[in-house]
Amino acid sequence: MTSGSSEKSAAKDSTGSPATGLGGGSGMQLIVPLQGVVQGSGGIVLGSLIPCALFYVLQLYLKRNRSPSPPPSPSDDGSWETHAISRSPSRNVLSPRGSSGHAAVSSRASSIAKSGGSPYFVGSRKCSEDPYHPIDNPDGVIQLGLAENHLSLDLIGDWLAKHMKDSVLNEQRGLGGLSISRLAAYQPFDGLMELKMGVAGFMGQAVGGSVSFDPSQIVLTAGATPAIEILSFCLADPGNAFLVPSPYYPGYDRNMRWRAGIELIPVPCRSMDNFVLNIALLERSYNQAKKRGVKVRAILFSNPSNPVGNLLSRETLHDLIDFATEKNIHVIADEVFAASTYGNEEFVSIAEVMNTHEFDMSRIHIIYGLSKDLSIPGFRIGLIYSFNEHLLAAASKLSRFSSVSVPTQHLVISMLTDTKFITEYIKMNRERLRVMYELLVNGLQQLGIECAKSSGGFYCWADMSKFMKSYSEKGEFELWKDMLNLAKIHATPGLACHCIEPGWFRLCFTTLTQKDIPVVIERIKRVTYRH
Amino acid sequence: MTSGSSEKSAAKDSTGSPATGLGGGSGMQLIVPLQGVVQGSGGIVLGSLIPCALFYVLQLYLKRNRSPSPPPSPSDDGSWETHAISRSPSRNVLSPRGSSGHAAVSSRASSIAKSGGSPYFVGSRKCSEDPYHPIDNPDGVIQLGLAENHLSLDLIGDWLAKHMKDSVLNEQRGLGGLSISRLAAYQPFDGLMELKMGVAGFMGQAVGGSVSFDPSQIVLTAGATPAIEILSFCLADPGNAFLVPSPYYPGYDRNMRWRAGIELIPVPCRSMDNFVLNIALLERSYNQAKKRGVKVRAILFSNPSNPVGNLLSRETLHDLIDFATEKNIHVIADEVFAASTYGNEEFVSIAEVMNTHEFDMSRIHIIYGLSKDLSIPGFRIGLIYSFNEHLLAAASKLSRFSSVSVPTQHLVISMLTDTKFITEYIKMNRERLRVMYELLVNGLQQLGIECAKSSGGFYCWADMSKFMKSYSEKGEFELWKDMLNLAKIHATPGLACHCIEPGWFRLCFTTLTQKDIPVVIERIKRVTYRH
Repeated sequence: MTSGSSEKSAAKDSTGSPATGLGGGSGMQLIVPLQGVVQGSGGIVLGSLIPCALFYVLQLYLKRNRSPSPPPSPSDDGSWETHAISRSPSRNVLSPRGSSGHAAVSSRASSIAKSGGSPYFVGSRKCSEDPYHPIDNPDGVIQLGLAENHLSLDLIGDWLAKHMKDSVLNEQRGLGGLSISRLAAYQPFDGLMELKMGVAGFMGQAVGGSVSFDPSQIVLTAGATPAIEILSFCLADPGNAFLVPSPYYPGYDRNMRWRAGIELIPVPCRSMDNFVLNIALLERSYNQAKKRGVKVRAILFSNPSNPVGNLLSRETLHDLIDFATEKNIHVIADEVFAASTYGNEEFVSIAEVMNTHEFDMSRIHIIYGLSKDLSIPGFRIGLIYSFNEHLLAAASKLSRFSSVSVPTQHLVISMLTDTKFITEYIKMNRERLRVMYELLVNGLQQLGIECAKSSGGFYCWADMSKFMKSYSEKGEFELWKDMLNLAKIHATPGLACHCIEPGWFRLCFTTLTQKDIPVVIERIKRVTYRH
Repeated sequence: MTSGSSEKSAAKDSTGSPATGLGGGSGMQLIVPLQGVVQGSGGIVLGSLIPCALFYVLQLYLKRNRSPSPPPSPSDDGSWETHAISRSPSRNVLSPRGSSGHAAVSSRASSIAKSGGSPYFVGSRKCSEDPYHPIDNPDGVIQLGLAENHLSLDLIGDWLAKHMKDSVLNEQRGLGGLSISRLAAYQPFDGLMELKMGVAGFMGQAVGGSVSFDPSQIVLTAGATPAIEILSFCLADPGNAFLVPSPYYPGYDRNMRWRAGIELIPVPCRSMDNFVLNIALLERSYNQAKKRGVKVRAILFSNPSNPVGNLLSRETLHDLIDFATEKNIHVIADEVFAASTYGNEEFVSIAEVMNTHEFDMSRIHIIYGLSKDLSIPGFRIGLIYSFNEHLLAAASKLSRFSSVSVPTQHLVISMLTDTKFITEYIKMNRERLRVMYELLVNGLQQLGIECAKSSGGFYCWADMSKFMKSYSEKGEFELWKDMLNLAKIHATPGLACHCIEPGWFRLCFTTLTQKDIPVVIERIKRVTYRH
């Protein structure tokens, strides 16, 4: 759930709202998205003004379209947040005066509470208010914004129906008194060793057996979102920065800024390179940060990438590590889609590169989780995999703030030790992802929409720039509005992902069925005709 | 688990280690514990020097007694942390040079990684290395430091054996495809409404039906530890302070300082008042903080109190709220032991007081959880209950970093809706707590050890000052050492709880059986003879 999930508030950050930027320096980041488009001496000025103006327009739009007291609405990964607390009148409790009074919360909480006006939020709310259903609500809004995989949920459901009883129940039945205490009592906050072993094995299968992961290098957390927050907190101090090749997963902004106070510096990648990172660009962003006195502490990237879906080659990974070594900074590889690849291209984990390369491993850290690759985001299982003892020591202490429930740990231990099931699951899931990906990409092609070359993830990254009225962020924003209101499709605009080129959209296909694809294509057609 | 759990690193804070103080101003806090003992003009100087000297002695002691590479050791609530990562040689991964290298982590992570040399840590490690067992290891170390309730685990175990299958399994079987997605897919990060309703009902039962709690005012988190961290983050900015009547639960230091960066100011309570808060003392501490430019944002207290076990009267609660209203600050009531009361005295929740009092409710916040009152710390279920909409909005967004696993939520929903079971459980558990409390207190009395008047919690608060060689923190420290090494009993010294009077110890009785009590008394006798 690191990549692809919950972009709600983060997407607001991505529009450049200074209100949500906790890490400072957000003013500078406004400049970056348009830096490549508006080059030259006027670039800085125009690059600053245009996003500000756009943001103003966006705020106006959102203000008009927001109901005075919105109901609880889905966050990016289908989660609901309590926006307007509609209190049911409980006995007496609400009678005293002052129920409308408001002792001030902290300024950092105030920023967080206010966040939530992003395109993502608006789209998600529309999805939850008027959800598409082929029979019950064929005119509803189609959810292409949520990176959640429903394609293989039946496999998980079947396994649970067969084994849930044995896995958790026997655990506590079999061993009498001892066992209920194993289930209910305090356990290591950073996860049971059996689960670490199970997940290490799963990670090994996810990367095709090319690496063996060591369970003692794992800290488990309640999802990959807290894993990346804890890791970031431990690698950088407030005001430090991470370099992040863009377009990137919008949730990163929230995960690193809100509490860890870290600035993210997008390193703009381009369509001509299929949005793959170029070390020269990395160098330039690094030097720019240095010039303005910002300490860069790490490079963060997702592989398979979110939102593009491409894979980093062994050579690029080598280059990245060399760059990090030269600058003495950390490398964070978010590999939450490692087992969700479907092309012929080989996925290479950074852990594999390390086997063949000479360098200080203590700067390499991997984020992983079972939300994407095992389709169980509700279970909340994520992890930090690191080669740095100090990092592991600190992170395991911080894991007390984000532990995985023990009954769930036992359930997943059982699932992961059923290696026959896991092997089949990964294989079938890959095949299903491939089929859906090809169906959607082919459908889009019929409309003249090309997608970036993609080999992993739950989405395609579609170039819809030709349908914009103007080649600009404003044009993209208008197109996003039309997608939502005319096509009734909730998609993630490139702007939310800090994409330097306007007109790209991330379209998630994993909550759809094959029969929904023609409907999606038909809907998108409405927008292409109009433009 | 807020109160009573995991004091490992926090207890180090309590010794005054500047290394772990993230919130700044920790130097000032060194002064407070001895301020009452060393009064007058020399108080400030002596109050600063004595704890520093003691801390130095403690460090020396720990250094000598620490093995060069300790095995994973239990943290305060029985959790193990990866201190020395003993890596098993995984295939190839460890071959490159630099495996011993260390890219630096952040300075805040460095402090956290280094923490862990507290008396609590030392005692917990001894417990895990050499655990007492009446038959298998009768000379082992007895665990009186862990606030975990084993007295009623059999009731939970029986319920699970009977109902676990129905509760989670039927959930996903009964409704077909829809239901596996309810179990595995993203759900609201701040908890399912059904669980909020169940917990609200449980809270109502815990306080004897005097209040009805409103589910829409709840944000669920993975335990009360993250609940209190998130709440603190939202009520105060870095460098702000909370007033905390002492002795207090040592884990507060860690929970508020590590990531939220909040300073805790102990407000010293005394044995002559049974350690109950006095508003004049609160006023003094508030003014002292103001004088040194520190902004106080809240009063934090546990009720039933941890470590004393006393209950705050309705009048004291009124006074506290009046004080908070006058100063325009927040009130945080940690009520995690609300259903674990056993005396004749009535427990009054702050939520109840609000029904009869006129003031701004938006400054009142309650911390609760099921780890203590339902004996299921492994399930990781805690919550913030607040009357402040802005707080709830921010906290529900931050709950994505600490969500409760959905299968566990369904399991607990079933348990909590079995109201007959819950009513019986609370009743039987209270009775079992009472019996054990009285056995231990009577046993201690035979040794001439008096306990503070206590009506709740898993512990008694014992005055062992007469056995100290000197009436000082050093005397307490020596006694703690003798308790651990001679009596082979792991107990929490008052120093760790910021107690102003030396010689008090918290002794948890809920992991014992009745047969263990005479053994404990016999063991403690060893120490009383010696002194």
